[in-house]
Amino acid sequence: MDGLEPKSASSATTTWSIHRYDGSEVLPAQDDIAIEAPLTIMLNGEEFATLVYTPSDTVDMVTGFLASEGLIRFVDQIESLTLEEDRGFAHVKLRQLHQLSREMVSKRFIGSCCGKSRQFYFHNDMRTAKTVRTKLSLTIAQCFHLMRELQDQSAEFRLTGGLHNAALCTANELLVTRADIGRHNALDKIYGHILRGRIPVKDKILAFSGRVSSEVALKAAKIGVGILLSKSAPTDLALRLADDLGITVVGFIRRNHLTVYTHPERIVECTQGLKS
Amino acid sequence: MDGLEPKSASSATTTWSIHRYDGSEVLPAQDDIAIEAPLTIMLNGEEFATLVYTPSDTVDMVTGFLASEGLIRFVDQIESLTLEEDRGFAHVKLRQLHQLSREMVSKRFIGSCCGKSRQFYFHNDMRTAKTVRTKLSLTIAQCFHLMRELQDQSAEFRLTGGLHNAALCTANELLVTRADIGRHNALDKIYGHILRGRIPVKDKILAFSGRVSSEVALKAAKIGVGILLSKSAPTDLALRLADDLGITVVGFIRRNHLTVYTHPERIVECTQGLKS
Repeated sequence: MDGLEPKSASSATTTWSIHRYDGSEVLPAQDDIAIEAPLTIMLNGEEFATLVYTPSDTVDMVTGFLASEGLIRFVDQIESLTLEEDRGFAHVKLRQLHQLSREMVSKRFIGSCCGKSRQFYFHNDMRTAKTVRTKLSLTIAQCFHLMRELQDQSAEFRLTGGLHNAALCTANELLVTRADIGRHNALDKIYGHILRGRIPVKDKILAFSGRVSSEVALKAAKIGVGILLSKSAPTDLALRLADDLGITVVGFIRRNHLTVYTHPERIVECTQGLKS
Repeated sequence: MDGLEPKSASSATTTWSIHRYDGSEVLPAQDDIAIEAPLTIMLNGEEFATLVYTPSDTVDMVTGFLASEGLIRFVDQIESLTLEEDRGFAHVKLRQLHQLSREMVSKRFIGSCCGKSRQFYFHNDMRTAKTVRTKLSLTIAQCFHLMRELQDQSAEFRLTGGLHNAALCTANELLVTRADIGRHNALDKIYGHILRGRIPVKDKILAFSGRVSSEVALKAAKIGVGILLSKSAPTDLALRLADDLGITVVGFIRRNHLTVYTHPERIVECTQGLKS
């Protein structure tokens, strides 16, 4: 069990002098606020991208970002990664840049390309997101348990109300939790952790505090997990991608309610419902 | 009072077959889902940017996006704007592109530039965000009223749980409400509406359902409103920018509680608190 590191906790929030109205009077107070910092990723000496993020787990996030963007598939494709955190820079040297140019990375790809209904909007998504095949299944009770664990772990979220939380889980427990002001960053921190630790993902689940947008669904496919749990709602594009990429999306997991949006065959009670 | 247009409501959601667990059993059902669509903005014949957004108020969003990016300041700088919504394209022709190149638009700017503590991370933010000066003030009751109105207007949000809502308000009522799966897009739809309608902003307020990130605070400054109301929490970078740019941030407006984070001089009860 890894959870939020003490380092991460200390650098994720700061305090601010505020006025709070509590229903009866206005009182000055100190409040905990989520920190947001810019990070420019320099790739083989050239400026590649600038992200705004929660300054923790930076190496994991940069690693996960490079993998999400399709620049690496394995961690040993990175020759060096050095941080200048005070100036907000990450310097990355890759062993080889394939035929990839910076232009290609953000080039939009339109039209159907890999058959059927699948459509990718960015060229690199086509290269990196693949259909997830796993026989893993979960009970509804396990869905509730994992989401409850995520919320218990996410002290920072309750403290500041400004962070997204993502966790890599087995069917029964959280393995690692990451927080960020950016939904994608929280997932990239998990992705980088998986790559750097060479963690197998077929039997793993992603639990996420935020909304399931198309980019979140694509990121789950890139990571290779078959079940995505969320406290919030998905978008239609996310569901179309999840449907096509073989990802089970379980959303709106709140109190004793939840909704299974795609691939219900991995949720035990849905299969029973289908059989009966 | 404009509110969510019928058109916007109809194209903002779709239905999806789901399994819902209601605390006792799993039942198949139909659910309303927020639509997410890609839009590529072609600028004077060249690909400029691809956004993923809720397909409504597209002309306002493109106009607001161009203004946010510092490419226009007034709507008549746009010679033509035509949509191919089915293919996901917006074709924009600007009268002149100044000395701006596409590269500059996303170029990061580091260091202090306009004196004092202000730091901009993107070059165009420096050009477009300016300190807001307005004598407008609000009572706490008005803050609660506007946020309640925003929630009442936001039927889509309750329906799908996947949309951010933004409203342009006077001290007493909502003038226009816009919804989008992307927080920035909702604000760009408001910004475009203001520019196209040549609406004065000194006496206006922004109410927003989402978290106040640095980009949300910057967008408020670009639009030129002095008070930003939110149901959610701000980040520290957002507060530092708001503090410096003269924006009053009131957050966590829920039930009968709220928090004033910056420039409390515009909230009547805070001033009284300070005087007593």
